[in-house]
Amino acid sequence: VWLTRQPREVVGASASLEIPAGKLDVPGEPPLETAKRELAEEIGKRASSWEQVLVFYTSPGFTDERVWLYLATGLSDATAEPDEDERIEIVPWELSRLDDAISECEDSKSLIALLWLLQRRG
Amino acid sequence: VWLTRQPREVVGASASLEIPAGKLDVPGEPPLETAKRELAEEIGKRASSWEQVLVFYTSPGFTDERVWLYLATGLSDATAEPDEDERIEIVPWELSRLDDAISECEDSKSLIALLWLLQRRG
Repeated sequence: VWLTRQPREVVGASASLEIPAGKLDVPGEPPLETAKRELAEEIGKRASSWEQVLVFYTSPGFTDERVWLYLATGLSDATAEPDEDERIEIVPWELSRLDDAISECEDSKSLIALLWLLQRRG
Repeated sequence: VWLTRQPREVVGASASLEIPAGKLDVPGEPPLETAKRELAEEIGKRASSWEQVLVFYTSPGFTDERVWLYLATGLSDATAEPDEDERIEIVPWELSRLDDAISECEDSKSLIALLWLLQRRG
């Protein structure tokens, strides 16, 4: 599974372990298109198969921020290069070590993805 | 497992399915004490065993809101009654139906709890 490490100044984290993700910041863009764009921008990949896994609110008590989570499989290199953003480190992670990723991860959307993947693999 | 349903006006939900939880709004109170207090206030229970499961940020890109997640077992009725808050419905949920709870739940902290519990049960 392809993860990223990036600084999260808001919580004082220098290298937060997270899944590829991004904001719905293009007006009118469907969430799946945003996901495809972010996969290419963050890790330079495209996927032959996309499956919607879960849709949820990060903290419904005080914000309407909503996350669409997809499983992207059949990865190949995207034609475009990843953004030249030195803040994002690409982190290939062995599926046999999902437990370690779950232990390190402190980001809710990424924990949901990793825990979901763990039970899917059985 | 004991869940709750409560309105979440911020996201337009009339009955959001969630685990018992609450804000760290008592200055200086350790997270475990808050968890014990909320378990009693929301579902009227106390637990003989508490295990810290995970600690995470709900959305580290824009807020420092942090969640301490515990597994509380050995439940019995608390001496105090639950808060007379008609907004919170207590929902006992069969462990054999965790999948259904995961499908219905749209709250990140509760999804993490339910997915974690699912893999713990094996």
